[in-house]
Amino acid sequence: MSDKVIDILEKSLGKTALVRLKNRGSLRGRLEGFDEHLNLVLRDAENISDARNVKKLGSIILRGDNIVTVSPPKSYPLV
Amino acid sequence: MSDKVIDILEKSLGKTALVRLKNRGSLRGRLEGFDEHLNLVLRDAENISDARNVKKLGSIILRGDNIVTVSPPKSYPLV
Amino acid sequence: MSDKVIDILEKSLGKTALVRLKNRGSLRGRLEGFDEHLNLVLRDAENISDARNVKKLGSIILRGDNIVTVSPPKSYPLV
Amino acid sequence: MSDKVIDILEKSLGKTALVRLKNRGSLRGRLEGFDEHLNLVLRDAENISDARNVKKLGSIILRGDNIVTVSPPKSYPLV
Amino acid sequence: MSDKVIDILEKSLGKTALVRLKNRGSLRGRLEGFDEHLNLVLRDAENISDARNVKKLGSIILRGDNIVTVSPPKSYPLV
Amino acid sequence: MSDKVIDILEKSLGKTALVRLKNRGSLRGRLEGFDEHLNLVLRDAENISDARNVKKLGSIILRGDNIVTVSPPKSYPLV
Amino acid sequence: MSDKVIDILEKSLGKTALVRLKNRGSLRGRLEGFDEHLNLVLRDAENISDARNVKKLGSIILRGDNIVTVSPPKSYPLV
Repeated sequence: MSDKVIDILEKSLGKTALVRLKNRGSLRGRLEGFDEHLNLVLRDAENISDARNVKKLGSIILRGDNIVTVSPPKSYPLV
Repeated sequence: MSDKVIDILEKSLGKTALVRLKNRGSLRGRLEGFDEHLNLVLRDAENISDARNVKKLGSIILRGDNIVTVSPPKSYPLV
Repeated sequence: MSDKVIDILEKSLGKTALVRLKNRGSLRGRLEGFDEHLNLVLRDAENISDARNVKKLGSIILRGDNIVTVSPPKSYPLV
Repeated sequence: MSDKVIDILEKSLGKTALVRLKNRGSLRGRLEGFDEHLNLVLRDAENISDARNVKKLGSIILRGDNIVTVSPPKSYPLV
Repeated sequence: MSDKVIDILEKSLGKTALVRLKNRGSLRGRLEGFDEHLNLVLRDAENISDARNVKKLGSIILRGDNIVTVSPPKSYPLV
Repeated sequence: MSDKVIDILEKSLGKTALVRLKNRGSLRGRLEGFDEHLNLVLRDAENISDARNVKKLGSIILRGDNIVTVSPPKSYPLV
Repeated sequence: MSDKVIDILEKSLGKTALVRLKNRGSLRGRLEGFDEHLNLVLRDAENISDARNVKKLGSIILRGDNIVTVSPPKSYPLV
């Protein structure tokens, strides 16, 4: 990944990120790690695809090939 | 994979992990091994896609490209 | 990527790009970074798939494999 | 593949394995070989997708990208 | 890519090419650049999927994995 | 590919193999060559997807990513 | 690609090949070039998916990942 992509992900460590998935809505969680495939480690992750029924997922490893976009903390508006 | 992803998987060895699959519900099993493709070895695996009809699968090798998320032990709530 | 592709992306840094996605409409945002997979960093990104309901997304990392086309700034007409 | 994945497959050589396929039911056969893509060689293979109509396939090379899970011998229950 | 494929693309630089896309109709534009993934840079690109409603796209970077065929200039008939 | 997979394919050279395809039925033909992607060269190939309407295809190069299974000669029963 | 696959493609240069595509019918054209991804250069290409409405495509570069089979010249019957 480019320095810029890595830079943004590193600055986001320990903070909450929003992840939009291919065909599977959205997840939100505290970013704990990532790699060059955009595999992510999220803590206190939540499935927020249905705003009226947020599901707690705990800590997860998210396989990068499911991702459309990752929004770093404080940059995204309320869903 | 990043050190963080490997670190979490290594700490999970011997414990129960939850795996959500692309289009195929969820599996649960004791994590016995993994590799850089997120291929997993699970012991006493169960297909828990249908909570009322859990199917025992025994030991399995799960090909990583089927995975959306892996939840390490004790981090995920009851389904 | 070829020098030409990199050249165009580098000249677009700091300016607004339009991105058409596979099956997911279009995004618009200020290009802050990119890599060889066409992963993009977009600031002040907006989902403009529905012209009557533009959604602000803030800063995002867009995974390149979702992309059909990227239009550099000032080269594309109004949608 | 990790040592653990290879280890399990090597111990399974000459014994019967169960393979679940993406969208194509299940196969069963004696494992004769494998590689890092999870390509498998199965002898006396059977398509057991329909329990009432098991189809004998003889020896087959199964391309790994069709696989969801592989169950080593004696670890899986009757279907 | 083979010398032949590169040769044809290089001879097409600065001229108009027609591109047929997987499931997304056709684009036409002046070829400005390309790389080994068949990523293309097209200037004055047009979406000609609907002959009665040609849409101007300006300059675009087209991600190669969306492509079925590329027709070099002067080789293809009117659509 | 593993020695075992290569071994089976090499022993099959000049003999008839059966190939099951992803979503496209089955082909049968004399195996003339193969490579590490499981690309196959088949002579006197036939499309046997419809047993009542076998279509002769002549010699073909089959791209490996279309394949589910390959059955070496004399190992598979009549369809 | 194996020597055999390359050998067949090289012998086919300058002659007419038939290409069957994933979900998109068939093309026919004079083979002018190829590479290891099975990307093909075809001259005087025709879309023969509909036998009653053959469409002339001129020269094309065909991206290899769209291909199911390639039939070298004189080996395939009339469609």
